Amino acid sequence: MSEIIKNQQWIYTKRPTAEVSNEHYKCATQNLSTELAHNEVLLEIHYVSVDPYMRIQQAQQQSWEAPHPLNSVQQAGTVGKVIKSNSDDISVGDWVSAYTGWQQYAVVHHSEINKLDAQQADVTSALGILGMPGRTAWFGLMDAGKPKPGDTVFVSGASGAVGSLVVQFAKKAGCKVVAFASSDEKCQWLINALKADVAINYRDFSDYQSLNRYLQKQNVKADIYFDNVGGLITDATMPNLNLRARIIICGQMSQYNGQLDEVSQGPRFLQHMLYQRATIQGILARDYTHRMDEMITVVAPWLQAGEIIYDHSIVEGFDLLPEHLASLFTRKSHGKLVVKIR
Amino acid sequence: MSEIIKNQQWIYTKRPTAEVSNEHYKCATQNLSTELAHNEVLLEIHYVSVDPYMRIQQAQQQSWEAPHPLNSVQQAGTVGKVIKSNSDDISVGDWVSAYTGWQQYAVVHHSEINKLDAQQADVTSALGILGMPGRTAWFGLMDAGKPKPGDTVFVSGASGAVGSLVVQFAKKAGCKVVAFASSDEKCQWLINALKADVAINYRDFSDYQSLNRYLQKQNVKADIYFDNVGGLITDATMPNLNLRARIIICGQMSQYNGQLDEVSQGPRFLQHMLYQRATIQGILARDYTHRMDEMITVVAPWLQAGEIIYDHSIVEGFDLLPEHLASLFTRKSHGKLVVKIR
Repeated sequence: MSEIIKNQQWIYTKRPTAEVSNEHYKCATQNLSTELAHNEVLLEIHYVSVDPYMRIQQAQQQSWEAPHPLNSVQQAGTVGKVIKSNSDDISVGDWVSAYTGWQQYAVVHHSEINKLDAQQADVTSALGILGMPGRTAWFGLMDAGKPKPGDTVFVSGASGAVGSLVVQFAKKAGCKVVAFASSDEKCQWLINALKADVAINYRDFSDYQSLNRYLQKQNVKADIYFDNVGGLITDATMPNLNLRARIIICGQMSQYNGQLDEVSQGPRFLQHMLYQRATIQGILARDYTHRMDEMITVVAPWLQAGEIIYDHSIVEGFDLLPEHLASLFTRKSHGKLVVKIR
Repeated sequence: MSEIIKNQQWIYTKRPTAEVSNEHYKCATQNLSTELAHNEVLLEIHYVSVDPYMRIQQAQQQSWEAPHPLNSVQQAGTVGKVIKSNSDDISVGDWVSAYTGWQQYAVVHHSEINKLDAQQADVTSALGILGMPGRTAWFGLMDAGKPKPGDTVFVSGASGAVGSLVVQFAKKAGCKVVAFASSDEKCQWLINALKADVAINYRDFSDYQSLNRYLQKQNVKADIYFDNVGGLITDATMPNLNLRARIIICGQMSQYNGQLDEVSQGPRFLQHMLYQRATIQGILARDYTHRMDEMITVVAPWLQAGEIIYDHSIVEGFDLLPEHLASLFTRKSHGKLVVKIR
């Protein structure tokens, strides 16, 4: 028995050249048939993800894939409830995560969703610690960074979805953590809640030279630099590496509001790679999807025992999705930003 | 029976801030006693090395070690003949390589020299293919670069001591080579003698954007980028990497004449590490000294069979050593520059 439901969608219509905002989207209503093919399910979406990588996909340049196509639903991870099923594996009432984008409903094949255990963990964790951000933090640090007890780990964007997990995973690995964030309040949280050893509000420094001098004065050097932000923090960190330092490029948020297309300049630093025989490695969450079991084995027990703080900022409002995306670059909150749409 | 001999030495007296020249050295005469302690030998030096890394050691900043001390003999690799020996292992007439610096004679402990087989290879090869430059090229490419048949290998400074070997080792590994050099004549040599697939005179390009556009038009992308030079070539290469590209930082010659202390600016590129999950690794020859046997096993037979061109530019003149060092940054010749001093 099928019907037509009104499905609100955010359509990405215009490429931003600086900050993203409402003007780059339009809200449209689709008439969605609830008729399901074999093994399809109908999802009622409850939680929508906004992530910095979305802004990379809005650059004109090719990234790891072609730019996000215009005039299509903004792609995004989501969590929803099954309200109709034509699959033996999925029942009505099941919670699932999927990649349906910014819309209220979606018809998807059962191979494209992951069933969630709402008893085991808050379903929104599928968009955070048990999803893409968690995978990025875990494999970026453990696989690419190879932390050893006693290592000093610099983390930029330390209060964000990925960074706040890297800080905690690094502490679990016996490392000293130097966390960079954009406000004193975030720094307080990093020290008090996440147990970072040092937290530095990089906005206290007007240029990279002064941050560099500060690090040198404190004699703080990185064995690992987990970089989500780039720009000034990177510029100041490169002259402060220990021998065989490992630099993990997870993101370059400081460059996403236009500078991926109109490339900005920064101080050259490759000589430091030579001096310290350091390495830089770019990582993407998708490269580790097939290894999630390795992570879950270690991290899920920590989560259940309350040994890891995962701080999801849940905000409301389907209507505000573009604004929530833009807020990633300016927000005062920490942890993973999730938008509750119903 | 000991005597006093007059030993001419080049003393490094003043830190250059741009090009190095005679004004940063003085020539002095040492009265050298030929009295030898147990296991010491007296060397008559015939060949002296000039290498780009010397210019790094003249920067004010710490590199892999403290800057070269002022008012001491310029450090350098040399090849000489033993003219007096108090060691059972070394005989008068033996050819050896050592690290005696820019001087005519030296008394050294036998543990600090390597005996050379003048029948097996030209003794100057100890300063080139069978010495530091060869080791850098071999382990940089094979260990850090991990070439696979069919890979495209970019080499900057391709006609230099290290680059000219990297080009040939990469061809031996079944790779396609794109060689960058600073003149049409060098490019001709790279194509005709070293069998590079493509040779690009980067001086034909006024800025990195035009070189970048050229590479994109030709659809040439790097699986490996062996970088001796940095600057414009690096800026143009970074947007033209293949998935999981390996970048080896062996040198940054374009930055040695002042820009290690007064850091220059270049376009930011770390986003490309992310897009391509690329890696950058800095390497130093000294990290592979203990593995020379691995290289010799493979390379020595090639050398004896004439399958590798090793083109040593032998120039004369102890008096001209500072000028020969400076010439590394402007010279028209290719291959390893060796100064014959007697």
